[in-house]
Amino acid sequence: MSMSAIELQGKNAKQASRALAKLGSQKRDAALRAIASALLSDTASILEANAIDMQRGKENGMRDSLLDRLLLTKERIAAIAQGVSEIVALPDPLGRSDYEATRPNGLRISARRVPLGVVAIIYESRPNVTVDAAALCLKSGNAVILRGGKEAYNSSAALTEVMRRALRDTGLPEDCVSLVSDTTRESVGELMNLTGFVDLLIPRGGAGLIKHVCENAKVPVVQTGVGNCHVYVESTADFDMAAEIIFNAKCSRPSVCNAAETLLVDAKIAAEFLPRAKKLLDTKHTELRGCPETLKILPDARPAEPSDWEAEFYDYILAVKVVSGLEEATEHIAKYGSGHSEAIVTNSYDAARRFTDEIDAAAVYVNASTRFTDGGEFGLGAELGISTQKTHARGPMGVEQLTSLKYVVYGSGQIR
Amino acid sequence: MSMSAIELQGKNAKQASRALAKLGSQKRDAALRAIASALLSDTASILEANAIDMQRGKENGMRDSLLDRLLLTKERIAAIAQGVSEIVALPDPLGRSDYEATRPNGLRISARRVPLGVVAIIYESRPNVTVDAAALCLKSGNAVILRGGKEAYNSSAALTEVMRRALRDTGLPEDCVSLVSDTTRESVGELMNLTGFVDLLIPRGGAGLIKHVCENAKVPVVQTGVGNCHVYVESTADFDMAAEIIFNAKCSRPSVCNAAETLLVDAKIAAEFLPRAKKLLDTKHTELRGCPETLKILPDARPAEPSDWEAEFYDYILAVKVVSGLEEATEHIAKYGSGHSEAIVTNSYDAARRFTDEIDAAAVYVNASTRFTDGGEFGLGAELGISTQKTHARGPMGVEQLTSLKYVVYGSGQIR
Repeated sequence: MSMSAIELQGKNAKQASRALAKLGSQKRDAALRAIASALLSDTASILEANAIDMQRGKENGMRDSLLDRLLLTKERIAAIAQGVSEIVALPDPLGRSDYEATRPNGLRISARRVPLGVVAIIYESRPNVTVDAAALCLKSGNAVILRGGKEAYNSSAALTEVMRRALRDTGLPEDCVSLVSDTTRESVGELMNLTGFVDLLIPRGGAGLIKHVCENAKVPVVQTGVGNCHVYVESTADFDMAAEIIFNAKCSRPSVCNAAETLLVDAKIAAEFLPRAKKLLDTKHTELRGCPETLKILPDARPAEPSDWEAEFYDYILAVKVVSGLEEATEHIAKYGSGHSEAIVTNSYDAARRFTDEIDAAAVYVNASTRFTDGGEFGLGAELGISTQKTHARGPMGVEQLTSLKYVVYGSGQIR
Repeated sequence: MSMSAIELQGKNAKQASRALAKLGSQKRDAALRAIASALLSDTASILEANAIDMQRGKENGMRDSLLDRLLLTKERIAAIAQGVSEIVALPDPLGRSDYEATRPNGLRISARRVPLGVVAIIYESRPNVTVDAAALCLKSGNAVILRGGKEAYNSSAALTEVMRRALRDTGLPEDCVSLVSDTTRESVGELMNLTGFVDLLIPRGGAGLIKHVCENAKVPVVQTGVGNCHVYVESTADFDMAAEIIFNAKCSRPSVCNAAETLLVDAKIAAEFLPRAKKLLDTKHTELRGCPETLKILPDARPAEPSDWEAEFYDYILAVKVVSGLEEATEHIAKYGSGHSEAIVTNSYDAARRFTDEIDAAAVYVNASTRFTDGGEFGLGAELGISTQKTHARGPMGVEQLTSLKYVVYGSGQIR
């Protein structure tokens, strides 16, 4: 049976990953530095490829916000190269041992950090992800298979070619980084089933795609970026602080996964608080979709549909629900939350303690915006996304989360 | 739509897990101590249930080794209770934080260890696993759904009832521990798809079942216990040490996953070493299945079939292959190994370094038997099995590997 193009790509990536795993961080970092300089010296060819994608996007009537996401400029490429340099500066995630023991029988055991092997990433039409993802994988000693969106294909292919050339120039196998040339749904299906070649698959993009991949992949998957986040304003909250936090969580960047989608307000303070919050939210023309109690206080709000509690709006839209107290708030979050980021605004020590104990999410906030869930903001360095699952990795997926471990045991003839 | 029995069980376990997650280790440990004493005081009822399983097993012509695995005695129940007490004595896996930082903006971040939630375990007809698995889950704050083999159903049901009563007596929800009453393949399928209720599924037992579950489950899975382990005797090995190691790795307990299945011998020493190893292996009437080179040295050995390199014999059978050196040995292991435990016997520093660097397995040994891959032997405490996958957990799956983390962020009104 002959191999498909993607199987062959998987096999080559696996082989490259074995060579890569033997290298120390000096060589991995040297390759990353070469990638950063090649991005700068080859900017012209990258911009040329990007112009083709932009042209097609315009012809196909792509929305302005998506066109902007697709656009590369000299400055943006410089920023991407700068991002690579920042990844070089991170500590080597393979450079430490998690556990060391000398056992009573003399066996010396250490749990050495090792790369996963081959990481595959399915992502939307953002050319910068092509480089960010590859750099994070190389830093952690992994080969990467990139499967980007078709609208950005020419840009991603140009960026990949620049990276592969830099790998060759520094003596690393070029198959440490490769791009899937088939941008149909079929290649997603193939990647999902590439057992033996793909050690971890990270799907990004729409919630439907992510769910489909998580439920049907045969290879291990980490789910990232599904964010139905809540801000709960408890009865003892400082109203100004609470209004600033919900405004920031909703409106500072509605298109990202750590933006808030639902405001929960304690019934005791709803009549006083909601109009104050609305004033701020109105400055961004935020559409409010309220429960019946909310509508009594804010008659202009649109009645919330049941589906609004589940929605990630990615827009200036906020669902609003009046709750009887902490218990109803935590139950609502348990029912509708996606396990990403949840916040309480309160002055009650007990409420803060109960909320942080009981809410089951990657990040739980007291008196701060959900927008801080980010590897950089947490002090963990660059990341590939926010994992909302509880196994393997939860929260920011940085270079450490792209590693596994291996117990190395040194003996002198021990038998059991 | 009404819920199936297993869905309802999942829902109840999820609810119980929420209550359990709020408890400190004092209460979890008290419940475990109550379970240990209840096992001792209720021994009679457990033995009665076990007698029914034993009777049926005999009627159905169950093999002696399986009957022995099924049998409970007063002493064995005492040993199970003792195992629970040892799990109580382990450090609380939820009692520490993986990461603490105060950020420049004043946010205080800590990565708190939290339970996974609900762990489901599919296991063979070993009544002791019913208690071991439940105790490890409770210690780590998880509710557990047990799905044991049908041959041990009465025993497992009696043990589960004893544990549930102990939970009630110490004020914990009894649904922290429950047994699936449907022992057909159908319940495996239902558990695999219990998204929203099951946070981690651990299949144990036959390789076919494990592969089926890993490839088809919608819930997260950890693969344990698939062990095609190798011992490679390099040309500089001490022959006596090497013979003792392969004899121990193969014959000390052939039915377990860390037993060796294939011996790889360097061509330079094969003619001298193989007859010496055979002498020891003969004391257990070990059947050797050799490559053509092996057969030239050991004409009595049976010719190895291609499938022998892939087999887990679980028996006194050993595949033997002569290799040209370290490179062929590591390639053979990369091709056929299951990523469990691999050993080299050598006096060459360089060979030891290359083998430990290049072999991709949960445990890699120099000059020691593969049989040491075990939580207790590694000094990590009791475990549910040996994970052979690279994501989430690799190697012994102890209480720590049954946890996740949650970033708790304390602010004073920070916005981004």
